[in-house]
Amino acid sequence: MRRLEQSEKRGRPDIVHFALLEALGSPLNKEGLLQVNVHTISNYVIKLDQATRLPRNYNRFVSLIEQLFEYKRIPPKSTEKILLTIEPQTLSKLIHDIQPSYILAFSRVGKLGTLEEAVSKISVENRPAVIIGGFPYGHFSEPIIRLANTVLSIDSEMLETWTVTSRIIYEFERAISMPKKRLK
Amino acid sequence: MRRLEQSEKRGRPDIVHFALLEALGSPLNKEGLLQVNVHTISNYVIKLDQATRLPRNYNRFVSLIEQLFEYKRIPPKSTEKILLTIEPQTLSKLIHDIQPSYILAFSRVGKLGTLEEAVSKISVENRPAVIIGGFPYGHFSEPIIRLANTVLSIDSEMLETWTVTSRIIYEFERAISMPKKRLK
Repeated sequence: MRRLEQSEKRGRPDIVHFALLEALGSPLNKEGLLQVNVHTISNYVIKLDQATRLPRNYNRFVSLIEQLFEYKRIPPKSTEKILLTIEPQTLSKLIHDIQPSYILAFSRVGKLGTLEEAVSKISVENRPAVIIGGFPYGHFSEPIIRLANTVLSIDSEMLETWTVTSRIIYEFERAISMPKKRLK
Repeated sequence: MRRLEQSEKRGRPDIVHFALLEALGSPLNKEGLLQVNVHTISNYVIKLDQATRLPRNYNRFVSLIEQLFEYKRIPPKSTEKILLTIEPQTLSKLIHDIQPSYILAFSRVGKLGTLEEAVSKISVENRPAVIIGGFPYGHFSEPIIRLANTVLSIDSEMLETWTVTSRIIYEFERAISMPKKRLK
């Protein structure tokens, strides 16, 4: 058997599942201030509408993504509001379309710094983008690193994708005083 | 068919799975400063050693918990270091054993306040305990509410268990300057 190229970055939809649940369930997303996209190693981009409520059950999530690959949209019926779409696209092309004013990427090989410092940079930006790796081992490829304005390492050990996702979102909410505002 | 008592609080091990992954993968846990216990509605208490690395895959997690109910400990062999144990115990008894100096519980029916305010209270405590509900609907029962020094609601909408877990841990780490310290 031959191994697929970059096999260390494949076969872990559970990582994406958890990270998406953290992102879509956040107050930031509920306020309409977050746009979530998933870029796959096979160069597909999945776009998720802010109103998407993903299955909490892993097996149902996998079925949903299989359905998405088959019909290219969820729900498949064209009369219903689109929640998920998928199309062939590179990460560079995606970034080009989004036109972020600043790109922050997380990587263990990045510059050491706290999330607080990182967020103080992006929270003043007009259209900041954050790139978080969703693979179990390995690092971003060079072209992706070059896209980023800052590549940051926030802990001395590897943190899980969903943990980084949850923390950057919360720290961002904090920077724009969202927790206080939402209690009023 | 009769429904089980408090059926709204049952049948969602996925919630516990995600919340445990957030807790056990946190720097706070890696530093040995977190002790995680799960109390089930059927009055069992699962204790997790800080070195526990749970399966990321949901189906494997469910198998592990089934094995735990069967053998009362994981790994089942008595010669290996215990990572998980389970025993019949009420939450009141568990709290009594832990002897926390302060108990913070999260509930949508609690007093409105930010995590930041909450953590400023517990981070100065000697042995603070935090109780987070792991059920999809419904609230803590009255005896559990009475155990808590503070019952807090941190958002105008329901937040997922794993989101609250992740945020309280991160806010606590922040309060004790752990993110900065771990970068040195």
